[in-house]
Amino acid sequence: MRVWELQHAFGLDALAITERPTPSPGPGEVRVQVKATSLNYRDLLMVQGLYNPKQPLPLIPVSDGAGVIDAVGPGVSQVKVGDRVMGLFAQRWFEGGLTREKAKATLGGPLDGLLAEHVILPETGVVAIPEHLNFQEAATLPIAALTAWSALVDEGQLKPGDTVLIQGTGGVSLFALQLAKAIGARTILLSSSDEKLARAKTLGADEILNYVTTPQWDRAVLDLTEGQGVDHVIEVGGANTLSLSMNAVRHQGAIHVIGILSGAASQLNVLPVLMKRIRLQGIYVASKASFEAMNKALSQLPIHPVIDRIFPFEEAVSAFEYLQSGRHFGKIVINVD
Amino acid sequence: MRVWELQHAFGLDALAITERPTPSPGPGEVRVQVKATSLNYRDLLMVQGLYNPKQPLPLIPVSDGAGVIDAVGPGVSQVKVGDRVMGLFAQRWFEGGLTREKAKATLGGPLDGLLAEHVILPETGVVAIPEHLNFQEAATLPIAALTAWSALVDEGQLKPGDTVLIQGTGGVSLFALQLAKAIGARTILLSSSDEKLARAKTLGADEILNYVTTPQWDRAVLDLTEGQGVDHVIEVGGANTLSLSMNAVRHQGAIHVIGILSGAASQLNVLPVLMKRIRLQGIYVASKASFEAMNKALSQLPIHPVIDRIFPFEEAVSAFEYLQSGRHFGKIVINVD
Amino acid sequence: MRVWELQHAFGLDALAITERPTPSPGPGEVRVQVKATSLNYRDLLMVQGLYNPKQPLPLIPVSDGAGVIDAVGPGVSQVKVGDRVMGLFAQRWFEGGLTREKAKATLGGPLDGLLAEHVILPETGVVAIPEHLNFQEAATLPIAALTAWSALVDEGQLKPGDTVLIQGTGGVSLFALQLAKAIGARTILLSSSDEKLARAKTLGADEILNYVTTPQWDRAVLDLTEGQGVDHVIEVGGANTLSLSMNAVRHQGAIHVIGILSGAASQLNVLPVLMKRIRLQGIYVASKASFEAMNKALSQLPIHPVIDRIFPFEEAVSAFEYLQSGRHFGKIVINVD
Amino acid sequence: MRVWELQHAFGLDALAITERPTPSPGPGEVRVQVKATSLNYRDLLMVQGLYNPKQPLPLIPVSDGAGVIDAVGPGVSQVKVGDRVMGLFAQRWFEGGLTREKAKATLGGPLDGLLAEHVILPETGVVAIPEHLNFQEAATLPIAALTAWSALVDEGQLKPGDTVLIQGTGGVSLFALQLAKAIGARTILLSSSDEKLARAKTLGADEILNYVTTPQWDRAVLDLTEGQGVDHVIEVGGANTLSLSMNAVRHQGAIHVIGILSGAASQLNVLPVLMKRIRLQGIYVASKASFEAMNKALSQLPIHPVIDRIFPFEEAVSAFEYLQSGRHFGKIVINVD
Repeated sequence: MRVWELQHAFGLDALAITERPTPSPGPGEVRVQVKATSLNYRDLLMVQGLYNPKQPLPLIPVSDGAGVIDAVGPGVSQVKVGDRVMGLFAQRWFEGGLTREKAKATLGGPLDGLLAEHVILPETGVVAIPEHLNFQEAATLPIAALTAWSALVDEGQLKPGDTVLIQGTGGVSLFALQLAKAIGARTILLSSSDEKLARAKTLGADEILNYVTTPQWDRAVLDLTEGQGVDHVIEVGGANTLSLSMNAVRHQGAIHVIGILSGAASQLNVLPVLMKRIRLQGIYVASKASFEAMNKALSQLPIHPVIDRIFPFEEAVSAFEYLQSGRHFGKIVINVD
Repeated sequence: MRVWELQHAFGLDALAITERPTPSPGPGEVRVQVKATSLNYRDLLMVQGLYNPKQPLPLIPVSDGAGVIDAVGPGVSQVKVGDRVMGLFAQRWFEGGLTREKAKATLGGPLDGLLAEHVILPETGVVAIPEHLNFQEAATLPIAALTAWSALVDEGQLKPGDTVLIQGTGGVSLFALQLAKAIGARTILLSSSDEKLARAKTLGADEILNYVTTPQWDRAVLDLTEGQGVDHVIEVGGANTLSLSMNAVRHQGAIHVIGILSGAASQLNVLPVLMKRIRLQGIYVASKASFEAMNKALSQLPIHPVIDRIFPFEEAVSAFEYLQSGRHFGKIVINVD
Repeated sequence: MRVWELQHAFGLDALAITERPTPSPGPGEVRVQVKATSLNYRDLLMVQGLYNPKQPLPLIPVSDGAGVIDAVGPGVSQVKVGDRVMGLFAQRWFEGGLTREKAKATLGGPLDGLLAEHVILPETGVVAIPEHLNFQEAATLPIAALTAWSALVDEGQLKPGDTVLIQGTGGVSLFALQLAKAIGARTILLSSSDEKLARAKTLGADEILNYVTTPQWDRAVLDLTEGQGVDHVIEVGGANTLSLSMNAVRHQGAIHVIGILSGAASQLNVLPVLMKRIRLQGIYVASKASFEAMNKALSQLPIHPVIDRIFPFEEAVSAFEYLQSGRHFGKIVINVD
Repeated sequence: MRVWELQHAFGLDALAITERPTPSPGPGEVRVQVKATSLNYRDLLMVQGLYNPKQPLPLIPVSDGAGVIDAVGPGVSQVKVGDRVMGLFAQRWFEGGLTREKAKATLGGPLDGLLAEHVILPETGVVAIPEHLNFQEAATLPIAALTAWSALVDEGQLKPGDTVLIQGTGGVSLFALQLAKAIGARTILLSSSDEKLARAKTLGADEILNYVTTPQWDRAVLDLTEGQGVDHVIEVGGANTLSLSMNAVRHQGAIHVIGILSGAASQLNVLPVLMKRIRLQGIYVASKASFEAMNKALSQLPIHPVIDRIFPFEEAVSAFEYLQSGRHFGKIVINVD
């Protein structure tokens, strides 16, 4: 089978298509014929060697993907050949809270990822694709959608009438927008691009703010909320946007810390955290049980993920470069076939 | 001012229109010119002397109503003349959980209700009407809508993809249906009338069951949920339907005990409660804070209450009789002007 | 190895010691040399054929037990020979909520229990014994202690200063008493025996009530709580005591429905549930994660279970009869060696 | 009456005893004869003009105090002359979450504080003193004890067996220690003084760490917790200790951000927040309902606050200076009589 891999070095230019023997599933394992994968910022950092410089090579990159089970090992009982499935990013996180152990076994590093024609996973490590989604759409769920779900639903217990401030128009942010609107929340969306903001508006964003032309967007958010601030912030910017988010959130509101696109470390004043009794909740995907609960919701609503562009397998490097450019609106998919 | 009151005796035939002096608000009080009221089953029981036989008379009945503030007493600062407001059913329940003390001061018994041209309330005892609702719609919120909200949102933390079994098509049930659909839940609605079921379908009910022609609706519900049962039950039937609800709810599911239309007391087997680890949660309206949170949601979604019929002030007795007949679908409103 | 089993019929007189080949653990399995078991009321009902008349025979009874791992099958990595362990009652309930599937695989019926010299369990189906407990003490934890923990901690989120009403002096009740006191709660204990009440007092019960000489104990409880009622009820009586418990619990309080010793079915009035906004929470043991959390607590506090009597293996039937007599105070243990 | 006040300027040397007319309570108000006050770090910052440079003067400082009601105004019904009471720091926070409005009306700035022989408060702004506590002890509860309670109980839902890392030996920290031990948690205490650590040990600290001699105390904490980290951190250090706390807390653990003694702002890396799915929860006292719940707990346990030193009224400045020195272990009290 063909796979993309980092063989001896990190870097986009070290990525290469190679041939590996098509594997067979062992006891309790299944083989998934991968149909589509999608990129997360984590994948880019991983390929660049920035996510975990100690990551052993070779590595097949890309955490998220979807396909069809085309072989099962002895003793497999929960799934069968022909099932349409997605990979579970944290392969050992089935229920309950995150632990150090559960955080270790993730696809796309340290474990091999899904940018390959086949992948072997334990039968417990796959999740059924909602019927209304195709493979490309399904490939976007395991990290981005689940992260948005976990922030707003698992931790945030978002209810209709709440107000959510969403930074950016990447995969997590647009899922958060779709989910928040589906639940009946009011949404305020931030972007540096008026064009992206206009597109977000068509997805249901109630208010839009260009953070370049409105650098003091915290004040604008307060103006939009009668001076109270929002109930929830989807924080993808990290340390450099956190201060403004603290200003923009209401007393006893929640900032869901999901990304660090603007930088991991910065000068930060924690005084507002205690004076306003703010909660900063780190979000790192979620369990298989949450994944399955989200899938029920996606089917019921129904929600289709926003896909920006689909690249053919051979152009995976271009897909990574496109992610790096930051020009995307929603998810970037790579087909595998 | 004209008021409907029970003067010396209980009973629908003891209800009479009388004249009382129009009152003036004292310190911290407001006077509301009532525009519309709506009926709850509690009002019927109260008038019949069945809710609380020790209720002192005279009593102006009806708990729910909406109108305009037309006078304010000294020191009033939170509201002003001209504000469109609803009464807060539990006048002292502002935040937090229900206590014995908070449960005592309720409108429409033991305190005078709103079936009158004016009512005096503390400024803390009124709640602003959402802008998109007229007085008739607003008059349906304080008990019925708030009860549905408190069950599904405050206690139930309903999320998209959950399944909710809703009994009946009265005010609480239809609010529950509208809310559940707005949040992205799947709904199964029970009624004895195929015509009402058809109307519920147009409101978004995903599945409908006639409990007369399908007396073993618990099995039907299990069939609709892959044998697992529903996540939530809106239980308005009381003791006589509870056993079937226990069968129809999933392990660790919630039955929100809201009404006792089919009877308060019955032979009940509690074994399923523990074997399936079920939660039975009694619901008795909610706090002012919940009311205000709900109003934000109603505005955002937006939701308009389902009103079956509007009676003129003079025909209040007919409105009660219509409620008693059980023929209504949604709320019964009495205009006051 | 010697085992107690029901071979062809139910009933205490059908229980017999037989010889079975000592089993060997398969892949992922461990063999536990059982050292002690303890009885729950479920075991008695199971032996009598009352718990599940369709239970296939033969059956080795008794759900709870503790021992030492003396052999491990291929691939076992989480435990090793020599480890002191208890059985996990619900063998597939590792984390999260109870589901229909998780509820099916329980020890002591439908699966074979621990009244045997050896038992084979998956490595995931055992839990480490807290260091400060011996085998007899450990044998009392898997159902009784865990049920009390799950009611008060998992569901009840008991905090210091809360008041807990506890019915009876069986295993669950005394664990609840010890836990509630350890957390700093106030406890009111009910029993039919003044002698048992006196012993409960030495375990820390703040208030004691004899429900035979004080049949209206609901009023007595209200008197002890300034008319408010208790925050939590540990309900082991079932349908026949539930009405009094509803009177004795405060508005928005919780009744943890754990047992049905006084009967499963009864005439019940659900009106107080909604008027007082009461929560009835069915409790059916808990997950492995909760079991492990409880064990940390037992070690830290530390708590030693209350054992009433220890029977030798050969006198298991006498142990069951003693349980049936209701004369015990705390747990009944059967040694296995 | 004599009061300490800042008349025209900030600073410890600007504090002066002056005479004001003894006030009389208006409608709904009570007059408290203050018996004792206690100092919080906030009081020092307030006097220095660092807490809120825009604070209008004159100001009677000190947020916390206890005394006896010696006069009541018209309409007062909840309390009476002779009642022993404490001030409620956030005078309008009765129940539910913190809001911008509730955060505004706090004693000791912007409102006058309790370093005076009498204070006028609304009857809703006082809380009954637990019977087992004297005035000096009671004076330490409104901020320090309530903050520890709110962190560990309201937000933390601390349970027996959890591990809590506590920074320092000031008022909040020692309350947290006492509470955590009372609930059955394991505690690890940090201090710069071996002598203070030894005293904390006598209060029940399970593990002690000197952060001066063990600057990498995060690693020491991991060693003490089998590499997992603690469940809760009582973070009083602020921005400069937060990074180490993030290392020392377990995946999905909670850091309760209570103080900023080591500095408000610092270079901070938020990556661990999301990778370990950490919760940072700002804590700013709590509601009156929480205060009353805590008092029940203090009575039941019982807990007596740790008082380091009691100063006479005339030596209030020395008390402030002692607080500033950081030499205290527990609370600093100023008598008022």
